[in-house]
Amino acid sequence: MISLGIDPGTASLGYGFVRERPDSSLEAVHFGVIRTRASTAMPERLFNINQELGRLITAFEPDRAGVEELFFSRNVTTAMTVAQARGVVLLTLQSASIPVAEYKPNLVKQAVTGYGGADKSQMGEMVRLLLNLDTAPKPDDAADALAVAITDIHSYRLNTVHPL
Amino acid sequence: MISLGIDPGTASLGYGFVRERPDSSLEAVHFGVIRTRASTAMPERLFNINQELGRLITAFEPDRAGVEELFFSRNVTTAMTVAQARGVVLLTLQSASIPVAEYKPNLVKQAVTGYGGADKSQMGEMVRLLLNLDTAPKPDDAADALAVAITDIHSYRLNTVHPL
Repeated sequence: MISLGIDPGTASLGYGFVRERPDSSLEAVHFGVIRTRASTAMPERLFNINQELGRLITAFEPDRAGVEELFFSRNVTTAMTVAQARGVVLLTLQSASIPVAEYKPNLVKQAVTGYGGADKSQMGEMVRLLLNLDTAPKPDDAADALAVAITDIHSYRLNTVHPL
Repeated sequence: MISLGIDPGTASLGYGFVRERPDSSLEAVHFGVIRTRASTAMPERLFNINQELGRLITAFEPDRAGVEELFFSRNVTTAMTVAQARGVVLLTLQSASIPVAEYKPNLVKQAVTGYGGADKSQMGEMVRLLLNLDTAPKPDDAADALAVAITDIHSYRLNTVHPL
């Protein structure tokens, strides 16, 4: 089972595909960021995100997806811009018929590190350990996205009735 | 030349197609609202907006589009939800290769009524007069969308170098 985690953004959108192996161990299949330039018009940036995410979905065929909920920062304009990109992400997943769950940032931190206030370096290190990587995944947005995918797989396990 | 005006929303998204005739008079080609239910999951609501808007674009073939910018209301959660729908609208227009302009709500009011603080009924009445309709267009979100299309056509005229 493969889950796609997404940390929404416009300039840099993090994504991470995590596979749960039959023995329940986790593996990072692919991760990275989709970048768009501030000098490009917003409709075109959103179109690029839609196209690039669509290509990744076709290539890695996730069974489910987790998308981080938005943290309401001081900057409302930035938050609105991220929300627009998030809308495009949800649409792209729905268009591919992929079930989507949404997770609050502190829930993701808690699921991965056991502590809702974990910082970026703690998160990166725990993601590295959980996915058995040699180094913490970079950039941070990709590490966050992998953390969302891990959270989604944990959530899926908890909600699944396992036969005895 | 046909402009599509859009008043973004999730529960009710207003749209209005306005044609500028060769004599520069304006005509309402089609207008209404796309509704989605709060009981439906957000990815599916966004997908429905994308599909319905795509069908309208195919049917009425606008040359340009104007999308209202967001008013930051007291309710941040609602604003975020509307921003997600707005992202899907911008993507849908870009996917159809339609040039998009964005207009602030008070600019739209000013363009249509001459007064940035106009209320809904004043807006509806001015839209009715400018489009030569028998009654003010309903619902209000559709009237707002027609006002955005009218603003877009005005803006286009002002920015176009007309040959002598």
